[in-house]
Amino acid sequence: MVVVMSAEAEEAHIQAVVALVENAGGEAFVSRGVNRTIVGLVGDVEQFGTLNLHALPGVTDVVRISVPYKLVSRENHPDRSVVRVGGVPIGPGTMTLIAGPCAVETPEQTLGAARLAQSAGATLLRGGAFKPRTSPYAFQGLGEKGLRILADVRAETGMPIVTEVVDARDVELVASYADMLQVGTRNMQNFALLQAVGAAGRPVMLKRGMNATIEEWLMAAEYIAQRGNLDIVLCERGIRTFEKATRNTLDISAVPVAQRLSHLPVIVDPSHSGGRRDLVLPLTRAAIAVGADGVIIDVHPHPESALCDGPQALVDGDVRELAATVRDLPPVVGRTLTQV
Amino acid sequence: MVVVMSAEAEEAHIQAVVALVENAGGEAFVSRGVNRTIVGLVGDVEQFGTLNLHALPGVTDVVRISVPYKLVSRENHPDRSVVRVGGVPIGPGTMTLIAGPCAVETPEQTLGAARLAQSAGATLLRGGAFKPRTSPYAFQGLGEKGLRILADVRAETGMPIVTEVVDARDVELVASYADMLQVGTRNMQNFALLQAVGAAGRPVMLKRGMNATIEEWLMAAEYIAQRGNLDIVLCERGIRTFEKATRNTLDISAVPVAQRLSHLPVIVDPSHSGGRRDLVLPLTRAAIAVGADGVIIDVHPHPESALCDGPQALVDGDVRELAATVRDLPPVVGRTLTQV
Amino acid sequence: MVVVMSAEAEEAHIQAVVALVENAGGEAFVSRGVNRTIVGLVGDVEQFGTLNLHALPGVTDVVRISVPYKLVSRENHPDRSVVRVGGVPIGPGTMTLIAGPCAVETPEQTLGAARLAQSAGATLLRGGAFKPRTSPYAFQGLGEKGLRILADVRAETGMPIVTEVVDARDVELVASYADMLQVGTRNMQNFALLQAVGAAGRPVMLKRGMNATIEEWLMAAEYIAQRGNLDIVLCERGIRTFEKATRNTLDISAVPVAQRLSHLPVIVDPSHSGGRRDLVLPLTRAAIAVGADGVIIDVHPHPESALCDGPQALVDGDVRELAATVRDLPPVVGRTLTQV
Amino acid sequence: MVVVMSAEAEEAHIQAVVALVENAGGEAFVSRGVNRTIVGLVGDVEQFGTLNLHALPGVTDVVRISVPYKLVSRENHPDRSVVRVGGVPIGPGTMTLIAGPCAVETPEQTLGAARLAQSAGATLLRGGAFKPRTSPYAFQGLGEKGLRILADVRAETGMPIVTEVVDARDVELVASYADMLQVGTRNMQNFALLQAVGAAGRPVMLKRGMNATIEEWLMAAEYIAQRGNLDIVLCERGIRTFEKATRNTLDISAVPVAQRLSHLPVIVDPSHSGGRRDLVLPLTRAAIAVGADGVIIDVHPHPESALCDGPQALVDGDVRELAATVRDLPPVVGRTLTQV
Repeated sequence: MVVVMSAEAEEAHIQAVVALVENAGGEAFVSRGVNRTIVGLVGDVEQFGTLNLHALPGVTDVVRISVPYKLVSRENHPDRSVVRVGGVPIGPGTMTLIAGPCAVETPEQTLGAARLAQSAGATLLRGGAFKPRTSPYAFQGLGEKGLRILADVRAETGMPIVTEVVDARDVELVASYADMLQVGTRNMQNFALLQAVGAAGRPVMLKRGMNATIEEWLMAAEYIAQRGNLDIVLCERGIRTFEKATRNTLDISAVPVAQRLSHLPVIVDPSHSGGRRDLVLPLTRAAIAVGADGVIIDVHPHPESALCDGPQALVDGDVRELAATVRDLPPVVGRTLTQV
Repeated sequence: MVVVMSAEAEEAHIQAVVALVENAGGEAFVSRGVNRTIVGLVGDVEQFGTLNLHALPGVTDVVRISVPYKLVSRENHPDRSVVRVGGVPIGPGTMTLIAGPCAVETPEQTLGAARLAQSAGATLLRGGAFKPRTSPYAFQGLGEKGLRILADVRAETGMPIVTEVVDARDVELVASYADMLQVGTRNMQNFALLQAVGAAGRPVMLKRGMNATIEEWLMAAEYIAQRGNLDIVLCERGIRTFEKATRNTLDISAVPVAQRLSHLPVIVDPSHSGGRRDLVLPLTRAAIAVGADGVIIDVHPHPESALCDGPQALVDGDVRELAATVRDLPPVVGRTLTQV
Repeated sequence: MVVVMSAEAEEAHIQAVVALVENAGGEAFVSRGVNRTIVGLVGDVEQFGTLNLHALPGVTDVVRISVPYKLVSRENHPDRSVVRVGGVPIGPGTMTLIAGPCAVETPEQTLGAARLAQSAGATLLRGGAFKPRTSPYAFQGLGEKGLRILADVRAETGMPIVTEVVDARDVELVASYADMLQVGTRNMQNFALLQAVGAAGRPVMLKRGMNATIEEWLMAAEYIAQRGNLDIVLCERGIRTFEKATRNTLDISAVPVAQRLSHLPVIVDPSHSGGRRDLVLPLTRAAIAVGADGVIIDVHPHPESALCDGPQALVDGDVRELAATVRDLPPVVGRTLTQV
Repeated sequence: MVVVMSAEAEEAHIQAVVALVENAGGEAFVSRGVNRTIVGLVGDVEQFGTLNLHALPGVTDVVRISVPYKLVSRENHPDRSVVRVGGVPIGPGTMTLIAGPCAVETPEQTLGAARLAQSAGATLLRGGAFKPRTSPYAFQGLGEKGLRILADVRAETGMPIVTEVVDARDVELVASYADMLQVGTRNMQNFALLQAVGAAGRPVMLKRGMNATIEEWLMAAEYIAQRGNLDIVLCERGIRTFEKATRNTLDISAVPVAQRLSHLPVIVDPSHSGGRRDLVLPLTRAAIAVGADGVIIDVHPHPESALCDGPQALVDGDVRELAATVRDLPPVVGRTLTQV
């Protein structure tokens, strides 16, 4: 941390900062400039954060210079991690396709979507049984009935399942069915939920909050990691900006940035980023090319009657084009499509 | 709803839209233009939303023209509501000051803050026992011990208490102590929590999500209202923008906009919007002048040692200036400071 | 400036930074921490900016700690300035109302708007002859003919005029008619225009770019000041955010923030911020209460037939309410309405 | 256009809308719903825009349903265009690499950068002689001297040159040297400049404003097209969001969206989007994969001493990796690197 003193700060103000830091067990280095003085702090940053240095007389600014997360940081764990979901790896060297319906509706629809997903090269099945919906009047998911359908389709297809949990009270139930727990964008700072999935003994896919900085996203991952679970996959799914042509703005740069800051795998959700079917394939190509460790895509056998996000689900010819893309593009960037 | 057909849409495409809507029990009015045709839909909008009209051939856009919330809407409830918290009114005609410490730390600190709050004219005490913190390494609150401190201070001062709940599993516990439950900005779309507070039998203060549109905020309120609780106070606390001089950007326009769309009271949190002590008083003045039904402000007897958000808490001279402001300004805009 | 070294930086990397800074005539203070080292720089920041310290091996970050503007900064000019426009003051202690039509259309409409403006308490007349419009198919203004109309209305009413200039080639022409030159939001970083108005010998109203940080706004003002013109009034007119209920989001906090960073007067444009007539009065009240040195408001005798921004122009009863507001509210915050 | 009437609108209000539209030469179709009525308008949208329908009694909203640009729209020009710059094509089927220094500094540096650019596969040389800089204290470019250096390097290398113009008064001068005129992000709504480059007889590269929607970007292009110049290349260069890990947020989705709305070529600037050297190659890959018609990249023979944006310029090994990328990736997405 660096404490920036104002131009009018007196010597006594500077000494007060030094004394406070030293009393807290830290060290303070004073650099006196012509116009202003700065004090560099060395020691336990979390503790300094409680000192309210901002409030001291003569202090203009307090600048933090180290990252506020540890377990998920690449500083302490230089090699990038591989997370295994029911045996399927997500991480460097491979490109994993996760696909399935936005919401589980019926056994037939879910199995149909799973077969579509497999035909595209997917090795993990996504599908929502508990849906967080902005409107209380929208379809909220089948709940446990949906989880049972997913388990049946897993038995039929061999695909491990990824499904969302929206309530800390449901974590145990969902974890009893799922191979991977998904925390959605609206829950990225639902700290009770983060702690619950951290203790659930299952890999977690943590979607980036639509308004979260990359740093906040990594701090949310740190909440999960603190409970002993480092099997976390980060998922970029678009952020909220002023642009309205797309549902969200896919922050494609977040993939390499997060991979440099953290050792965790980073995947992309091209379906929810754009919210438009015609953007799914171009954004999938961008995600693979930028170096994502995987992509997660909505497919649906009958998108025109989907109960959730039908307008963005792939079907038919688009699925065949997806299959060609995930087969041909990863090798150009030094990866291979994950296969079982 | 209005369905906009593309310039290339054929007559069969138009008729397919009409047929789908009529089968769903709605009416469709076709307006044929020189370049394009639009179809106006009349009937149950929620049901039309499941039809995936976007996905039909020839359809360019589907535009919703009515609001997606009902119980909290002013369309169906033209008079603005008054919400009573332990007997203290929040609503039109009055301006209610809620004040207290960001976090409950000790009995002495909490009582000291409550006395400061009262000296400024506050009739409700705020204070956090459960704190949602971005970093897992930051102080997370005293939990039930904090609630007991708040109850003791209420007994001592007579001030009803407003306190945050961050986990649906804690709602019953918190409601057993609190006069009003606060849902924080990070939980505005934690739908499990919204439903739980909707059923808890206590008034609710719903902070706007820092990335939420006003429409999403009102839909979150609708989740609470659906469970039978219309004692909801909306709290604007700043949104996230590109500007970094302030912690958030206070969206002062949201106050009159939300008051026109909804009958619920709307208050402002000048402390968390700006995140800087020197902005609290100017923003409080702006909030009162724009027509807010109340303000909620951090005060602390010793901000330099506060465990949470000390840099924005008011003390001493600032509290006296706050007292003058909440006494003198409301009458100019046709309100009076709420008194007990 | 502070240079933050990475955890892996070697001693040679640190010494390279020190050497580069000292060769450039600066001083470098090294603070060695347990995990990382920081180097504080003292000297000419602009020169350090050309050193590309970011690009040196071992450097993680370079943090600027002083402001990048000088002439408009309050650090070097602690007293807040008053700018006089045709004799009318804008600055501390007063609250100046500027009003008039968005666009000059006819002599009758302009005179009618000026009379409305005066009836509300305005002492300066605004009106656009050159209009920057997003669409090339929208009304672009009357040009010099509009300037002549403004001059005639000034002669008739005695109100000095504020009008926009959009092209550096027109500055001389516009300055020959206007008492104050307005630089619009889309031109805030049109540096050629800034330099031209800086040399034109007229006070300048600089609107904040809808995407500009406060710091960038002050740097734009610095461009004008560099040409010898310190008669600059800053105008907050809303920034672009994700919220779509209002045309822009009025950043009300920008008023006190800019007043603390700069000695220049700061006014607010409530008409263009909200883009809705029903928000103009509430936002005007917020602006006065937060401490703005003035407000600029669209009025039009016949808004239903206005060629530009009619939906936000005040008329009739709203103008009478505006008059009451600018008379009654400023005294509560220690100001008086500017009068001629 | 669709006019949405309020629930309380009376029949007379509806008829007033109809009459106004019909008087203006349009047609109005009334759709009466249970709760509200909508009126669909057919005719000249620009003219309807001047009617201020918003301001009529009983009107809740006016929704535009057709695009506000014509000449650059793909609706009227279904085939995507190819723009030729000194003989080098930019458009569908090819992927054109434009590279060079951010700013022209010396003949040696410019020639060195051009040679680096050619070694990477570039067929067009970029380089700034007039630089728009946020701070008036930053290097502003060499002006005409820089243009002469560019012309000399073109003679030496055979590369046509792309260079920015920042002032309408300089357009003729810059056009006398340049093969393509660049309009920068801060000038995207400098309408005087747009009109001047529209009349200059040279192809134009129009960078997206950092705060501009895609629709506004296309309207800016329409300003150029209106003056008779359809040789316009759109350049996505990142938008401003809340995320601070990157200088701007590359809106990768804007490429396919703009290509669907407009027939103009769309390229990407990965250097200025990220503002970090380590992101240039990943973002270049994303741009090519998403279907960009070209990329424009900063290279510099000695980035550590660059006078502008050195931290993001590529050199040495990065340039070799860029060469491999632009050679190997385009064929996977059905394009070939443009060659001379």
